[in-house]
Amino acid sequence: MTDILPDPVTDPHHELISSTRVEGTPVRNLAGKKLGIIHSVMIHKVSGRVSYALLAFDRFLGVPEFVYPIPWEKLTYDLAVGGYVVDLTREMLEAAPSLSLDAAARPSDRATDEALFGYYGATMFW
Amino acid sequence: MTDILPDPVTDPHHELISSTRVEGTPVRNLAGKKLGIIHSVMIHKVSGRVSYALLAFDRFLGVPEFVYPIPWEKLTYDLAVGGYVVDLTREMLEAAPSLSLDAAARPSDRATDEALFGYYGATMFW
Repeated sequence: MTDILPDPVTDPHHELISSTRVEGTPVRNLAGKKLGIIHSVMIHKVSGRVSYALLAFDRFLGVPEFVYPIPWEKLTYDLAVGGYVVDLTREMLEAAPSLSLDAAARPSDRATDEALFGYYGATMFW
Repeated sequence: MTDILPDPVTDPHHELISSTRVEGTPVRNLAGKKLGIIHSVMIHKVSGRVSYALLAFDRFLGVPEFVYPIPWEKLTYDLAVGGYVVDLTREMLEAAPSLSLDAAARPSDRATDEALFGYYGATMFW
């Protein structure tokens, strides 16, 4: 490793990014306000496509209990801010569907995902 | 949380899986031999599709120095074995292209990915 090697997260020439680098990346809105960080992404098993990211609010103490699923298509990586940007106010996010951070306690039915994508006016690809 | 909730990893009705659950999942070949575990997956920034998984050999001590990229389309999740299955012998894997575990030291050029997909006879979707 040397300092001249590009950072894969911010290297615009690299078309791929590691799941472990997406996890933990900050998410900001168009006003530059930090909404939280990406906890993980949900991958559609058959197609291998990321369906949505789970956004967690930052906390000084403890781990978040809930995460906010945001359709992947709503997130844009912004080199200038070093994170993802989404067109969403904090208030819109707080009113959005949330899921338990505990994956075992999350619903696995299609209706849940349909409600989520409906809230954001996003397209379910599966 | 209760014990009667389905495990999202093994729940065949759940079409989505968390990136944090894919990471660490064992990979076996058709003979049932464990080849390693999935360290992480590489996501194509524009399309949001997983391009390949990085497979790490199991080690008793220390962390692996290299990981083996395997095109996502080559991996099939098998409920019976609780992990991914790939049609690959250990010898074929050891002769396959490998990358540094350190993401900053990995090449970001297209030719590297072309060689990788060529080795596996897989289709690059980007």
